[in-house]
Parts: sequence; C-alpha cells; structure tokens
Amino acid sequence: MPIGTPLTTLLEITHPILLAPMDVVAGSRLVTAVSGAGGFGILGGGYGEREWLERESAKLAGLSAPFGIGFITWSLASQPGLLDIALAAKPSAIMLSFGDPAPFARKIKSAGARLICQVQDEAMARQALGAGADILIAQGTEAGGHGASRTTIDLVPAIVDLAAGRAPVVAAGGLADGRGLAAMMMLGASGVLLGTRFYASQEADGAQDAKRRICAANSGSTVRGIIFDLSRNNVWPAPFTGRCLVNDHARRWIGREVELMQNVAVVAEEYAAAKATGNFDVAAVIAGEAVGLIHDIPPAAEIVERIASEAEQLLAGRRNSTVSLA
Amino acid sequence: MPIGTPLTTLLEITHPILLAPMDVVAGSRLVTAVSGAGGFGILGGGYGEREWLERESAKLAGLSAPFGIGFITWSLASQPGLLDIALAAKPSAIMLSFGDPAPFARKIKSAGARLICQVQDEAMARQALGAGADILIAQGTEAGGHGASRTTIDLVPAIVDLAAGRAPVVAAGGLADGRGLAAMMMLGASGVLLGTRFYASQEADGAQDAKRRICAANSGSTVRGIIFDLSRNNVWPAPFTGRCLVNDHARRWIGREVELMQNVAVVAEEYAAAKATGNFDVAAVIAGEAVGLIHDIPPAAEIVERIASEAEQLLAGRRNSTVSLA
Repeated sequence: MPIGTPLTTLLEITHPILLAPMDVVAGSRLVTAVSGAGGFGILGGGYGEREWLERESAKLAGLSAPFGIGFITWSLASQPGLLDIALAAKPSAIMLSFGDPAPFARKIKSAGARLICQVQDEAMARQALGAGADILIAQGTEAGGHGASRTTIDLVPAIVDLAAGRAPVVAAGGLADGRGLAAMMMLGASGVLLGTRFYASQEADGAQDAKRRICAANSGSTVRGIIFDLSRNNVWPAPFTGRCLVNDHARRWIGREVELMQNVAVVAEEYAAAKATGNFDVAAVIAGEAVGLIHDIPPAAEIVERIASEAEQLLAGRRNSTVSLA
Repeated sequence: MPIGTPLTTLLEITHPILLAPMDVVAGSRLVTAVSGAGGFGILGGGYGEREWLERESAKLAGLSAPFGIGFITWSLASQPGLLDIALAAKPSAIMLSFGDPAPFARKIKSAGARLICQVQDEAMARQALGAGADILIAQGTEAGGHGASRTTIDLVPAIVDLAAGRAPVVAAGGLADGRGLAAMMMLGASGVLLGTRFYASQEADGAQDAKRRICAANSGSTVRGIIFDLSRNNVWPAPFTGRCLVNDHARRWIGREVELMQNVAVVAEEYAAAKATGNFDVAAVIAGEAVGLIHDIPPAAEIVERIASEAEQLLAGRRNSTVSLA
C-alpha cells in the first residue's frame, strides 16, 4: 500500500521519494531509474552546462513516467536560455534552488510544469510561495552539497506551519532510509528528497571510488564549509556553503580558510589536478550526513522500493517493534 | 491509548516524555508536575549546588510517581558526595551528561536506580553502554544549553543502530510537540527528552521575562557557541558548547570570541550585573531550536498531555491529514 500524500497526487507518482538534482551526478540514467520505480527523478542541471543539458534532457523527452529538471537559480540567471532547453523535454516540474525563483516562474508555469522551490529558511519560503511555488523543499543543513545552517528537524515543521497547506512540503537533509521518510511524514512533510542515497546507486554518474567512500563513511564524517568551493574558484552567494566528506584536503584546510584564500592559485591547481585524476583524498566527494545510513550501491529502483516499503510498514505500525499503542 | 515503549516499561511511566534536568530551572515543582502527569521529571542538579540539591531532592523524596535526578558529570566528579544526597531521595534514575559516567555507575545501580546517560556521538554511547547505562539520551545540536555538533536527525538513528536493543534510546534536541515525538518514534527512539518546552511552563523556576522571550522567539533565533560561557567565566571541556537565544550580547560578540577573552574581566562584570537584574538583553536565556514551536506558558501537565495526545493520534494515523495509506 503506497503512501499517498498531496505530493504524490500533484506529481502523479507512486512513492513520495524525490531524487535531488545533483549537478552532473543525477543524469538521465538515474532520473529514468528513479521515475521508473515510482519515485520522481530530477535531472541535475546544476550550474548549467548547455551540451550536457541538451543531451541528457533529450534522453528524457520520451519518458513515460513523470520527471523533473533542476537548476541552481543564481547560475541559471546568467544563462536563462537553458530553461527553454529544459522545458522542451516536457518535464512535469522544474526545481529551482538557491536564489530568487520569480524571474523564471511564469515561463515554467506557462509551459504546464510545476515549480518546485528548495528553501533553507522562512524568508526564502515566503519568497518562493510569492513566486507561485507549487512545492517547497525544506532543506536542512545535514544535506550534502550546498545548503545553509538550519537543521532538518528544526526547519521542516517551521516550513510546514508557514506553508499552511498552500504547497506540499518535502523534507531534505540527513535522510536515506524508510525511518527518515516515516519520521518526516510525522512532522507534516509530504515526501522526501534524497541526494547522497541515490549517489550511491548503480545509475548515478559518479566515480566508483566516490560511491565506495560514501558507503564506507560513518555519520559525522562530513563537513559543511567553503574549503572545496574556494579550492575550485567557485564563489557562492551567502548564506550557502557546501557539505562534503571529510578527506585529507578538508583536514588540511579546515580553520585555515584565510590562508587558503591567500594561496588559492597554487591550491586550485593542485585541486584541479586531483579532480582530473579522481584523487578523492583531495577532490570533494559531495555527500550529506546520511552517509552513516548508506552501506551499498544498489540499483536506484531497489532504493526506492526499500525506502517506500520500510516507511509504509513503520507508518502502518507493523514493523515498529519499539512502539505499541497499547 | 498511551504510547508504550521499552522506556515506559523500564521507568514505569505512562508517557515517553522526559523532562531535561535543566540546571536550577527544573526544580522539584516542575519535576513533580511532569511526573504527576505521567511523564518523567528529572531534577536539574546541574553543576551541583549542595543546598539547592538538598532542599529540592528532599521535596521529591515522598513523591508517589517515578522521577530522576540529573547532574553534569564532569562537575559531579569534583564533588562526588552530591550523588549520595541525590540517591537518598530514592529516584528511579540518575541522569549523567557530559563526561565519563563510569566512576558513578556502580553506586547508582547498587542503590537500585537506573543509569541514564546523555550522549552526543557514537564514542560517548559506547562509553556509556560500557559503564552499564540503562537508557541513552541521543542529544542533537538543536538542544538548548550545552551539547555538541551532530544534529538530531543524524544522531538518533546512529545511536539506535549502535545500541541495537541493549538500551532504549531517547531523542533530544529541537523537539517540543507531538509531531516531534511521533517522528522520533519512527526513527526508532523510545521517547523524547524536552528542555525548552518545559522551561516555558508555569512550574519552571525561570524568570517570567525569560519564558516570555522563549514564546516570542522564532525558529533560527538561537545560537550555539562559547560567548555566554566566556562571559560568566564558566569553562567547559570540548566538544561542548552552549545554545541560547540570540540577544544583544550575543550579537555584540559572535565572531569576536578572542577579543571577548582579552576583555573578559570587564565583560564578566557587566554580564554578572545583567544577570543579577534579570536583563536578558545581556544575560543568557538558555534555549534550543524548538523555540519556534513554543508560543505559551501552560502548566507542565498540560504540555505532557498535549504532546502525548498529538503523537498518539499521529501514530494511529488519525490526525495526519497529509498521509493516506491508500
């Protein structure tokens, strides 16, 4: 018995499980797998590489299952034409994160797509609702990649209360299993958005060594900060910082950000070389706090089914051995 | 139909809701109210003021409902005789936080009391289980007062998996309503420990202005750091820092901790004066991220009943309008 929520109704999906549009990692193969399993795949348009977007979105154009395409809003603003490429693939939704969605809302909605906005605090949620967001993603600091400082357990009920039924709220950050999905339902969320869990899937376009490091990592072995962005000359607007696995490079520079900036030419060269050769002792493995819950690299469809099934059983009270409603 | 868990069985309580032993704020009046309502009150032994402890624990000695007494472990280590005063009141449990519980475990258990240990990561959980902890509190960084950096959504499943049924796990940090209790049940916790929510109760021994500020505060208006500890010459061992409401004093010194240390004599004098006069623009209101969920100052019994009832309804699927297990 699948979990039905306002989100599953709106997106016409079976399971309230969304794939985070991880830049480049969430390609058409992963989107197809997640959507095919009854979740909602969202292509990782990210910063917006035109050729990649044209190729990957074209592959999705014929997909029978609903899917979305995601962008980094402030980056899309510098090449707004990419939105036309995305909409040409007829996605059910466009997801915008990190910036004002208003300049893009009309075009998205005129094309018949839903507008999904990821937010990190109440002010951003108000801005998104004002722009006509159909769905809000409340992203806690536990999330991998870029995000802000508020935690999932703090942010989700706050955004649920603020939205007050105007838009379904999806929880993101620190979630990777059915326990997390069931817990977020209790907080009033209508679904979850998962990045790191799907990174460690067969269909993700990530290096095998990166996936293995995610499986091997414990809880508490990620760090949020600006070291990796500094090291690749990738300046983000406040309040956004990035969460990655702690590796040698992070250990070397944590707390020495000013010194890193002073030596950025040399460091950036070293960093680019490490990235090119897949040396993840230096290059970032972008991952969230949920790494502690991830121990394998299955097909994405199996991930969707596992999480949905565990959550369904927990919500139905069947598998939750610690709770008896006597 | 109350929520029965291994925790409610072990402590012989009706509702899996524990009062955090907030130093001085959780006095005998609040403990009596929480335990009388079917929760589990824990006296805030804190740093260990002998006269206060003697007076307040004596008032609990005749209580018919189960209750506990809590200490800051590293502070108790400097005056271990306080444990005898606590045990003389015949508490069902002693709760130890922030330090190695091993030196006190035998005496506590010999007296027939349960040992509750609050932990902030896996290493502390292993240490606590090794010392014979009967119950673990997994405290996320969202919590008010002292704590560490891992978040509740990350830490709770990690400690549940680590404990593997050897001890019930109680979730703490960022929780103040029935949604939070129900969500933590889904993560495998056996109950919740609440501080800030009970601070804003009629029976808490806190200033009325502090309670009002908690009610007025939004989510995201607390900060974790060392400013308030520095300002009162209260040195804590790593990795523990304190979370309080952001006020003028916090705004003045955040990011200028080194300068504060260099001027600590003057600042400490100002701070002590503000504390003495109840000027909470300077003095700390110790509170967690759950402030955003707190808008009133009811009797503690009403808080217990409200949270239990909301969680029971959510877990039974009756009040959760967003989820239909179709």
